[in-house]
Amino acid sequence: MKPKYIAIAAITLDGKIAKDKKHLSNWTSREDKIFMRALLDKCDVIIVGNNTYKTAKGPLSKRNCIVFSRSVNKLISKSVKLVYCNPKKVDVKKLIRDRGYKRIAILGGAQTYSYCLKNKMLDELYLTIEPLVFGSGINLFDECILDKKSRPTEILKKFWRVKLISIKKLNRKGSLLLHYNRDQK
Amino acid sequence: MKPKYIAIAAITLDGKIAKDKKHLSNWTSREDKIFMRALLDKCDVIIVGNNTYKTAKGPLSKRNCIVFSRSVNKLISKSVKLVYCNPKKVDVKKLIRDRGYKRIAILGGAQTYSYCLKNKMLDELYLTIEPLVFGSGINLFDECILDKKSRPTEILKKFWRVKLISIKKLNRKGSLLLHYNRDQK
Repeated sequence: MKPKYIAIAAITLDGKIAKDKKHLSNWTSREDKIFMRALLDKCDVIIVGNNTYKTAKGPLSKRNCIVFSRSVNKLISKSVKLVYCNPKKVDVKKLIRDRGYKRIAILGGAQTYSYCLKNKMLDELYLTIEPLVFGSGINLFDECILDKKSRPTEILKKFWRVKLISIKKLNRKGSLLLHYNRDQK
Repeated sequence: MKPKYIAIAAITLDGKIAKDKKHLSNWTSREDKIFMRALLDKCDVIIVGNNTYKTAKGPLSKRNCIVFSRSVNKLISKSVKLVYCNPKKVDVKKLIRDRGYKRIAILGGAQTYSYCLKNKMLDELYLTIEPLVFGSGINLFDECILDKKSRPTEILKKFWRVKLISIKKLNRKGSLLLHYNRDQK
């Protein structure tokens, strides 16, 4: 069985995952948090960027985590559960295979989602759309940060086609949970 | 009866309305186009930015249009149906009132949606989410362009709360039509 990479993200109507780097995820609905915890329980490990990890250190410390960081050299095992890894210097897919992880949750932020999108490590996407507008902020994908060499035009050519599997209305105000699969066609 | 401002937009999963300024709306689904035409039939006038107008001149020429452009001085009536208007120099709400328009469709692009968001000219939003990812491109809102003086931080404070009215799955691949109202609370 090949590892399955499952991205989990919450966005506003206008596609923002946060107002800025330090913005906590406290703007998402209670129902979304309940859903996310249940899904994380079914995953073997979480891939998360260092900024996002810092905003949710408490709850994440109980789970297996691979934290992406450009400030470490290759790989640092902090504990049995916690590994820091520089995705530019480590073969992340090999690391996943070597450790036998089968279900991998991608928790963001933008740089981490983008890294996974570019490296074909996105098989499924659970996307919660909260009924809010930020107007500006951090987008779901931010392709230019991790890899300075790849220009936007190159990324534009490789846009990604997906298939909607299910829709769930999470609450009365209308938080929506959408589940997409990568389209195999 | 107060005029009702109805924004109509199609976005990708990652909140993009286009890959770039000149990108046509030919990436949206057939079902979305059919829905949009039916909705425009029920509106008295369309507010649209000059770039977006240029990409859809044919179909839009049959309808009442107010085209936003910074390159005109105040207001220019090109025909009975077509008015060019500089929203920085014209009281747009007064223009709408004077002409007796009751249902106003906002067709974008980003600068026009943002202008309407900032000026409380967004009562409803029909948002189609197409099952695609562009990775980068033009966001739904782009608040910094029309008004150079307003800094992002000021905009961030005024994020907009809405209520989901309905969900419709438009086709098999999963284009979703979401209908939101401005939350009156």
